[in-house]
Amino acid sequence: MRFCSNCGQPVARRIPPGDTLERHVCDACGEIHYQNPKMVVGAIPVLGDRILLARRAIEPRLGLWTLPAGFMENNESTGDAAVRETREEACAEIELEALFSLVNIPHISQVHLFYLARLVSDDFAPGEESLETRLFRIDDIPWDELAFRSISITLKHYLADRATGRFTMHVEELAPVGSH
Amino acid sequence: MRFCSNCGQPVARRIPPGDTLERHVCDACGEIHYQNPKMVVGAIPVLGDRILLARRAIEPRLGLWTLPAGFMENNESTGDAAVRETREEACAEIELEALFSLVNIPHISQVHLFYLARLVSDDFAPGEESLETRLFRIDDIPWDELAFRSISITLKHYLADRATGRFTMHVEELAPVGSH
Repeated sequence: MRFCSNCGQPVARRIPPGDTLERHVCDACGEIHYQNPKMVVGAIPVLGDRILLARRAIEPRLGLWTLPAGFMENNESTGDAAVRETREEACAEIELEALFSLVNIPHISQVHLFYLARLVSDDFAPGEESLETRLFRIDDIPWDELAFRSISITLKHYLADRATGRFTMHVEELAPVGSH
Repeated sequence: MRFCSNCGQPVARRIPPGDTLERHVCDACGEIHYQNPKMVVGAIPVLGDRILLARRAIEPRLGLWTLPAGFMENNESTGDAAVRETREEACAEIELEALFSLVNIPHISQVHLFYLARLVSDDFAPGEESLETRLFRIDDIPWDELAFRSISITLKHYLADRATGRFTMHVEELAPVGSH
């Protein structure tokens, strides 16, 4: 951010009175521009003993496999976002079940959320942002070709919970790759 | 948003190619400005059979009682945000327990999250944004003077789960007041 989205004048970066963090502040109109983390919401679409994954047609991670997921939009709920992303990326209809994982990724200011979901049929196809969509049996999940760590951590929890038959909510935090 | 935060020129509002929603688009530099929901994160700080609430010193809902909560900042986790907000609003230290509630409020593009938490001592005090901080026994919770519906819904779930001794994660959605 270099210019004020309210009045078009250049913004400065400093700590406003009464605040503790640097913000983009407009000295022309007085607006303080806050920046906040974004939510990425997706689903774990399950049909019997198989899980629906989509292979990404766009960067980042073009060509790798993902659960249907994407940035939550204004004026929708987290559940709406999971259903919409599954439609957009895999042309598939799901019935949402419980919220299953919340993955904090503070170094990129994102929170990823995944819902358990029942795929209503085997009618699915790649959406515009996908190269391919496919149902994977648990033993066939392409672990080395998953697009994001939030996907692999969510799928690992899913497999573990499925093995016990008891599904609980999982909260995780990812550090930058290579950090300790 | 009226001006491009990247180049300072006026923005237009239309659907970009390949998108399905109207965005603020800059025809001068090509930037597309996405707007996304914000997260509000808080805690349910419990000491024995009492819950810590803070009375708001700022608008909105000045003078009403709330659980410590506020907008999540960039580069923090949801847990970090709950701990920080409890420090800022109630000068209190907590030990986080499980994530307890997620409340969707799509008409204001917010998602509220609350963690169960153990208050580590009875050392607390109003922060700059609070008029008063107080431990309430369950029977004394000021239901008619709570600041937000996400607070009352979270406290109701807390009381119900406490009565059964089994705490689970709750996902809720709030519609505009007066809607059906």
